[in-house]
Amino acid sequence: MSDDSGPAPAESEPPAESGSAPAGTAAAGGGGGGLTRRALLVGVGAAGGAGAMFAAMGALGLAPESQERDFVPPQRSDFSLTGRGAAKVVVLGGSIAGLTCAYELGKAGYDCTVLEASDRVGGRTITLRAGDRLDELGGETQTAAFEEGTYFNAGAGRIAQWMVTLDYCRELGVPIETFVNNNASAYVYTRGMAAPVRARTARADLYGYVAELLAKASDTRALDRRLTAEDRERLAEFLRRFGDLGPDLTYRGSTRRGFETYPGVGEGVPLGAPPSLRAVLAAGTGRAVTIDFGYDQAMPMFQPVGGMDAIAGALADAVGRDRIRTGTRVTGIKNLPDGVEVTHQGGTLRADYCIATLPPHLLARLPHNLGAQVTAALRTPVPVAAGKIGLEYRRRWWETDDRIYGGVTETDLDITHIWYPSHGYHSRTGLVVGYYNTAENAELYGRLSHRDRRTRALTQGKKIHGEKYRTELRSSVSIAWQRRPHIEGGWVTWPSHEGGFALLQRPAGRVYFAGDWLTHLVAWQAGAMESARRAVTELHRRVLQATS
Amino acid sequence: MSDDSGPAPAESEPPAESGSAPAGTAAAGGGGGGLTRRALLVGVGAAGGAGAMFAAMGALGLAPESQERDFVPPQRSDFSLTGRGAAKVVVLGGSIAGLTCAYELGKAGYDCTVLEASDRVGGRTITLRAGDRLDELGGETQTAAFEEGTYFNAGAGRIAQWMVTLDYCRELGVPIETFVNNNASAYVYTRGMAAPVRARTARADLYGYVAELLAKASDTRALDRRLTAEDRERLAEFLRRFGDLGPDLTYRGSTRRGFETYPGVGEGVPLGAPPSLRAVLAAGTGRAVTIDFGYDQAMPMFQPVGGMDAIAGALADAVGRDRIRTGTRVTGIKNLPDGVEVTHQGGTLRADYCIATLPPHLLARLPHNLGAQVTAALRTPVPVAAGKIGLEYRRRWWETDDRIYGGVTETDLDITHIWYPSHGYHSRTGLVVGYYNTAENAELYGRLSHRDRRTRALTQGKKIHGEKYRTELRSSVSIAWQRRPHIEGGWVTWPSHEGGFALLQRPAGRVYFAGDWLTHLVAWQAGAMESARRAVTELHRRVLQATS
Repeated sequence: MSDDSGPAPAESEPPAESGSAPAGTAAAGGGGGGLTRRALLVGVGAAGGAGAMFAAMGALGLAPESQERDFVPPQRSDFSLTGRGAAKVVVLGGSIAGLTCAYELGKAGYDCTVLEASDRVGGRTITLRAGDRLDELGGETQTAAFEEGTYFNAGAGRIAQWMVTLDYCRELGVPIETFVNNNASAYVYTRGMAAPVRARTARADLYGYVAELLAKASDTRALDRRLTAEDRERLAEFLRRFGDLGPDLTYRGSTRRGFETYPGVGEGVPLGAPPSLRAVLAAGTGRAVTIDFGYDQAMPMFQPVGGMDAIAGALADAVGRDRIRTGTRVTGIKNLPDGVEVTHQGGTLRADYCIATLPPHLLARLPHNLGAQVTAALRTPVPVAAGKIGLEYRRRWWETDDRIYGGVTETDLDITHIWYPSHGYHSRTGLVVGYYNTAENAELYGRLSHRDRRTRALTQGKKIHGEKYRTELRSSVSIAWQRRPHIEGGWVTWPSHEGGFALLQRPAGRVYFAGDWLTHLVAWQAGAMESARRAVTELHRRVLQATS
Repeated sequence: MSDDSGPAPAESEPPAESGSAPAGTAAAGGGGGGLTRRALLVGVGAAGGAGAMFAAMGALGLAPESQERDFVPPQRSDFSLTGRGAAKVVVLGGSIAGLTCAYELGKAGYDCTVLEASDRVGGRTITLRAGDRLDELGGETQTAAFEEGTYFNAGAGRIAQWMVTLDYCRELGVPIETFVNNNASAYVYTRGMAAPVRARTARADLYGYVAELLAKASDTRALDRRLTAEDRERLAEFLRRFGDLGPDLTYRGSTRRGFETYPGVGEGVPLGAPPSLRAVLAAGTGRAVTIDFGYDQAMPMFQPVGGMDAIAGALADAVGRDRIRTGTRVTGIKNLPDGVEVTHQGGTLRADYCIATLPPHLLARLPHNLGAQVTAALRTPVPVAAGKIGLEYRRRWWETDDRIYGGVTETDLDITHIWYPSHGYHSRTGLVVGYYNTAENAELYGRLSHRDRRTRALTQGKKIHGEKYRTELRSSVSIAWQRRPHIEGGWVTWPSHEGGFALLQRPAGRVYFAGDWLTHLVAWQAGAMESARRAVTELHRRVLQATS
């Protein structure tokens, strides 16, 4: 691979530490390894891959006696390219897609270089910790003033069980823990309600009334045509159970609503009678109650221990940090008869193939010779705004005062969700995600300064949690993904999966495309990984054919 | 306190280690501390209480750099007795109730001795690890042949958010993690079904048809009397969302059922059309789908990191191990004019007060002078059988093959539940709870030898998971709580909460009673703790009145 921007570091020389590297290798639990061991590990990883790196971690005492239970050795993948390829590949973007491409190609013998414009790898999987800086287009720079140990997953935040993301965690030895996506004790609050209620209360009331209405409709034989007597009996049995109905098939409330005083020595004081059917329907809590019904949101979900960036960090370590050039913005892509030429801020780089994983709307702006159809295709998907604010509190009032351990409060206020942390339970401090919103709401917050975002988020959250939501705040950081340099969006939507979407699955000459935006798993790391697997599979097939 | 069974160990002498102590202190994560540090800590705990112990742990390096995130210092309780008492109290039973009594009284200045018949503290919170022995009435003794790191919570297994158990975890610095009580990817299998389905599939079908039936009943105005036009519109909106109905309010299946191939680069292959309404009702999956609706089972739930016995262990350390005499079976209780006299295998012990926390059916058999009414009351609650089997597997096939990360498979087979571990995700091995059953099913298994229990459990589980359920087994241990010496039951049920239940809330002379069996939280550690708080509050009030 020719490159006039200067020689790559020799393999025996560990790359210098920089503030841009994810804090700590995955299995060390984040930030615990110390510089010397870190640098050594990175070097071992670059030279010997994940297996050698993890063996070295054991030797270095990063998996000591007291950590045995948490140390998870890397495991074999269910995916691998068959046969060895010797081509040089330049990967545009140190995103999850780009890192996965370089990782899988590297295992199959390819010589990969990853060009990343920002000073971090991981794309939209930013985890912010004490001292991390966050720039925005528009000029504002925030610095996380968190306590040591606090982190904020400002991008990707959860993983479903069936997603390939977990396979990479297993393969790379990134420890995972449960992410609580739905909590019966969290709140539901809509503008149709006088005051927030617990999710369990909203659910009990909706299910109770639905069960009663159907039980009575079924009982009055309105459904006779569809139901036999036996069916009706079974349905009634289910509805009694589903709605916690009385013997007369009426819903009058239930201990499922929750308690003023939970049972103990005494039988407890239940919350009491539910609002009327009409009030329950008017409250509009249906979205909140059904939010985990979808295949991508069903409980339980998962997260890496210590921060989502552990996955990107482990991939980068396995690729070899010396193969990844951060702070290197790509300025052009040219197909040549026998290769590709990529220009970047520091010079020009030639390779046999290129995989472009930048967001499509940014790729569309790059000078290239891939043709007008490719440009049109890249311009087709529409970027969507998305934003989050991390609110660090002096004490975990949601646990001690509200008895909410993880999970999400749903609201139709412009903050949309409040996430409580699924880790560090009972610690002294903790971080709540004060909004996670998209589209118009995210644009609204994104236009504000951080200070004004915080003020607005606190004003809204106070309607649910009261004054402590403001008074106990310790620090905060907000992100507007549409204002992130080199990304400029939360994700994209495709008007159709014909045309451009299909076109970009195929290479343009020697340039391949990959990213979550080229899948039906947009905005998920799993999408980026699946797309990467497709791209490297096709590239490898071509290389093997060319050399056979 | 006079005691002819020999002097208690001096405070400066750490009690000897014994196989019966829980393996490792709570914050050390279980089993990692080593004997020397352990012994020292136990001594520090005995002399200085929890605060001193945890300070010592820090000094000993048990909360090193890499563990910072997991180390949770003890925190102030929301419960404490006001004023100091100087009385001597003998506590019968090193159960959760007994340990909580001794802990709270100890904080208020009382001189407590705990007598425990078995060689372990914790009562029904047994956590079994490699090498642990388990005796049963009837003569069989099992020894856990688990790998290092595997554990089996053979008794208490989960904690709800609102339970006082979490307050003790916070106060004592016992780290907790999420317990997955309900998993959309786990299976549901009833004898009414041809083959198991995922919980998400059973739920989608039941909700889909219920929504359709009600939407159409509502649409045909059968419910006109109760619903205005606006109500009907809101109901229809909810039902569409709830059942994932088509525009014509018909349920034809949904991606919520799951996929043959999940979305990725392609849009995925959904599972296809649902069974008929009649087949869905006949399958009888209602129990499985509604199992976490109750206030005590709602998601998320929690467990101590490293094993449930961490709570009993932390309580015992805080009480002081020298105050707890294991292997000491009580043989009689006598109220005296100025105190109580408790006889036990090793002699006689006098104190000012006694708190009896043994199971009521065992207390009823003890010689005592508390009167016939007390005996009758103690005989009122009915012991219930309960059993579990721990199946340790060579590989975590439920994660790699079935994509089930934690949670519970529900079935009407006699095994009732299969629990997948909510910890150690992606480890090499792991332990599944192969049955957790009660009453008749537990009696059936309890009458078998361990070998026959295992054979039966594997035969049943194979119907759900196939041949690997048998072939991948590494080791197993089973427990039949009705056969546990000194316990003889899973829990009790009260025919009524009048009469005996009310009587035993009050002391019989100088003898108080405490235990989950005296609460509306039977079978929960929280019940034992709440009952203990009631007993010590009343005892303390009496002592303060007597001395004022």
